[in-house]
Amino acid sequence: MIDSILDHRALLQQSYTTAWNWISTVNATKLLRFLPVASLGTAFLGKHPAVQKDIFKARCESLIDKIDLENVTVNFVDYVPSGTKLSLGDIPASCGAAYQVAAADVCRLNMVVATSNASEIMLEAWLPRSYKGRFLSAGNSGFSGCIPYLDLSYGSWMGFATVAANNGHNGDTGKPFYRNPQVLKDFVYRSLHTGVVVGKEVTSLFYDEGFDKSYYFGCSTGGRQGLMAVQRFPDDFDGVVAGAPVFNWVNWISWIANFYQITGPPTADTFLPVSLWEIVRKEVLRQCDQIDGAKDGIIEDPDLCHPTFERLICRHDAEADNCLTGAQARTVRKVLSPFYGVNGTLIYSRMQPGAEIFAAYALCNGIPSHYSEEWFRYVVYNDPSWDVRNFTIHDAAAALEQNPYNIQTWDTDLSAFRDAGGKVLVYHGLQDGLISSDNSKLYYSLVAETMNLPPDELDDFYRFFPISGMGHCSSGDGANAIGNGYFGYAGSSPEDNVIMAVVRWVEEGIPPDTLRGTKYVDGIWSPVVYKRKHCRHPRRNVYRGPGKHTDENAWECI
Amino acid sequence: MIDSILDHRALLQQSYTTAWNWISTVNATKLLRFLPVASLGTAFLGKHPAVQKDIFKARCESLIDKIDLENVTVNFVDYVPSGTKLSLGDIPASCGAAYQVAAADVCRLNMVVATSNASEIMLEAWLPRSYKGRFLSAGNSGFSGCIPYLDLSYGSWMGFATVAANNGHNGDTGKPFYRNPQVLKDFVYRSLHTGVVVGKEVTSLFYDEGFDKSYYFGCSTGGRQGLMAVQRFPDDFDGVVAGAPVFNWVNWISWIANFYQITGPPTADTFLPVSLWEIVRKEVLRQCDQIDGAKDGIIEDPDLCHPTFERLICRHDAEADNCLTGAQARTVRKVLSPFYGVNGTLIYSRMQPGAEIFAAYALCNGIPSHYSEEWFRYVVYNDPSWDVRNFTIHDAAAALEQNPYNIQTWDTDLSAFRDAGGKVLVYHGLQDGLISSDNSKLYYSLVAETMNLPPDELDDFYRFFPISGMGHCSSGDGANAIGNGYFGYAGSSPEDNVIMAVVRWVEEGIPPDTLRGTKYVDGIWSPVVYKRKHCRHPRRNVYRGPGKHTDENAWECI
Repeated sequence: MIDSILDHRALLQQSYTTAWNWISTVNATKLLRFLPVASLGTAFLGKHPAVQKDIFKARCESLIDKIDLENVTVNFVDYVPSGTKLSLGDIPASCGAAYQVAAADVCRLNMVVATSNASEIMLEAWLPRSYKGRFLSAGNSGFSGCIPYLDLSYGSWMGFATVAANNGHNGDTGKPFYRNPQVLKDFVYRSLHTGVVVGKEVTSLFYDEGFDKSYYFGCSTGGRQGLMAVQRFPDDFDGVVAGAPVFNWVNWISWIANFYQITGPPTADTFLPVSLWEIVRKEVLRQCDQIDGAKDGIIEDPDLCHPTFERLICRHDAEADNCLTGAQARTVRKVLSPFYGVNGTLIYSRMQPGAEIFAAYALCNGIPSHYSEEWFRYVVYNDPSWDVRNFTIHDAAAALEQNPYNIQTWDTDLSAFRDAGGKVLVYHGLQDGLISSDNSKLYYSLVAETMNLPPDELDDFYRFFPISGMGHCSSGDGANAIGNGYFGYAGSSPEDNVIMAVVRWVEEGIPPDTLRGTKYVDGIWSPVVYKRKHCRHPRRNVYRGPGKHTDENAWECI
Repeated sequence: MIDSILDHRALLQQSYTTAWNWISTVNATKLLRFLPVASLGTAFLGKHPAVQKDIFKARCESLIDKIDLENVTVNFVDYVPSGTKLSLGDIPASCGAAYQVAAADVCRLNMVVATSNASEIMLEAWLPRSYKGRFLSAGNSGFSGCIPYLDLSYGSWMGFATVAANNGHNGDTGKPFYRNPQVLKDFVYRSLHTGVVVGKEVTSLFYDEGFDKSYYFGCSTGGRQGLMAVQRFPDDFDGVVAGAPVFNWVNWISWIANFYQITGPPTADTFLPVSLWEIVRKEVLRQCDQIDGAKDGIIEDPDLCHPTFERLICRHDAEADNCLTGAQARTVRKVLSPFYGVNGTLIYSRMQPGAEIFAAYALCNGIPSHYSEEWFRYVVYNDPSWDVRNFTIHDAAAALEQNPYNIQTWDTDLSAFRDAGGKVLVYHGLQDGLISSDNSKLYYSLVAETMNLPPDELDDFYRFFPISGMGHCSSGDGANAIGNGYFGYAGSSPEDNVIMAVVRWVEEGIPPDTLRGTKYVDGIWSPVVYKRKHCRHPRRNVYRGPGKHTDENAWECI
């Protein structure tokens, strides 16, 4: 039991490290509140069935002899019992912790797959003993470069034959793209697709029954990868869960570059320290929290929230600790405004209100975006000395013009995917301070307009769930545990688990009407505060009573 | 009595004609609902006191001998008894009806004032017998070119020595600006200012007591003129009422030009006939009407209303009468989106939702804007063949670069006006389909940011009242009668009359906290449906009960 607790502590540490990589420049102490701090109580994983293990182990170890696939080199095959703390060896520091706990008995397969003469991916398949006949591919994050081991553990624990790759390079960095278009191509789409092709073959080799259905889940870059598959490889998956997709990629790169232009460095009179963003947040909540009917610190629909900030400007006789200068008020207005480019067209939607604090740490911290800098240095301009502090909308135009391998992932005709019978569920946290949820909402509109489909027809194959109180893929102030990952687990029922919701949709034809999120006191081992059913777009959640706002049945999707 | 009724009918007709000029291309039958259709009941004007008339008449007729002012030529001075239907002679058809009923006994003075070697204004002063010691200047509308006789009648009836000019040219057209910068200069600011200088002198000559305070009221172009005075001639007025100001003028010209680019002509697949805009309006109300707590067809705060329109897209098995194509849904989205230009900066705020029908007639009617065409032909490009159908954001940039005489009227430092003790009240109808109320809201933010003043300090000299249920300066579905003109009259108390509200603010130091609007069944002679107290920005109106939404005390400004 002690071991198990330690394992989970290790898992937690690993999760934190991944988050750090996203927002590598932030104040750790302040950010902690946005991350699940688990109390080390009863573990929800850790079932260790003992029977038939030896059979499975032998079967696993023989797999290496069965694999003879083009371009595939098997590094190793290992039987890994549940609870094993795997050392991951020499993975890059930017990929997080160098270990992973296996949550289920799995056959772990590590491969290298050549994708061209100048590129290759590292691919892992975690094939569980408690297999349920389903294939699952997990996506990446950021610029990684990192095999998502936590998702491999999570997916295999839920009975999926789960595969995931390193996205064609190692480390959460864009430097490997420099003068290496094949590596970039892997990052844009080929790593995921290759992993699916190989992974499906491996799954069929390992399990006599093969697999029935093919699934995908991923968030952030993983969300983009999922939509890329929907747009480009409509037969890869029967069901796709795409969270907080960073599609409209090139414009997102420009958007995050621009925050430094708005705030300036910490010494600028346009800059706000986090303490003032806290004031901004209070004002946002004062203006917007109760529009949904409940004063609970959660904004159910940021579309209804377009706050103004004049009220925060300091009176002339006031101390400046709790108020803004006019220049700072302007900064806030700009941060929460959409971003337009040289030709007058939208570059990127506004940061939605409600995400101020996360945005303050991640994008408005007075430090130029290293993601943007790397993209422009190593992809757009091939100039390692390019300085993102000089970014302008002309750079945004140049980047969009380039759009290598259509990384934009912004095609709006999903007919092929629909016609192949695929189902895609997009979710996006409404407190996401790194990728605006409005971008996902815009995509929904564009698809509807392009395909001439109203929501009740789009719903046949494409559903979008904004998740109130969820930050970037996780964390946030509300009922954000929807089973989209290990630390968002709140049960395996399709009502509570976004992956299982798509499974039921695909296999039983029962689509998710709502997605129930769970709010924990402090991470998934702590007590439940409340649950809330999130509505699918374009509905929005309204508090009706008579129960308290913590009563999931006191809310209505309208 | 019959005469009086006929007079009012004539007044009504005149009011309509002015409205027609603003939206000359619209479907008259459909538009009627937006204009006050008065039942010919009891007139509220028409008091005809008989005493001292002869003395006043003689005093009036002798005024012509007293006037010896530089650049001023007096055409005539006439004593006009209340109820007189004045023939206005050869005024341009675009200025509306060729007659005006005087609502009070006035001494009417008609002058021409040279403003340069190449320009002059026609100026009238209506000096009432029942004078209350206050000077008042009334503004213009559109591209006029038209003396606002209705406002002269209204102002003098309320006891103000009222002056108004033709804005330096005749007719609601920009053609006189063609290669004539002096005429343009009059239009931008000099006509109003000159009329104030001369008008004040005339008032002092006519009344032994002179005048105590100086006021201004105007809407639309008149609103812009009022703000121009605030920005440029801070000593001209003690109190200014500026309605629906078409400041940010050049960008407004570009904004209205762009609607044709969005909708195309009526044959385009991007175009919506009014019948479909009616569907859009229903959807806007469905999504937004109740956010303020009351389902009354009135959106109290469009800031909370950012509707999506995918739901209106036709199902594949549907008839197209009650739904939109994807292309039409996109048109609606664009019409209700802000407009950005070549350098990525905002050209003009979005059309606020709630104004769809008015906008459908005025700007989204598939007919290129003649205002925009005239401005580009006769001011920007000096090219009478320029075709507004070819308008692009590059034209917008060229026009803004030119900004003749700073017609933008967008200066945001109002220190001089404040320091002179002036008070300015801006109001803007939230159903204004011709000039977005969001533009006035943006200006408020810019002034606050520039002057480093929070609302409770701005309130000392500048207050902004969004008026729910008011269209462009008048009409609309809600409690829009706030005394801003003859047909918006609902009493002379400062609570109900925006002009008297500013008078009390200036003279008694009691600023308006709210502005009460009246909703009539069908114009100001019909019964009152309800009254509502409009909040000053940045507060918004919320229905609290327990009374019905028609109970003005059931609402709260938060």
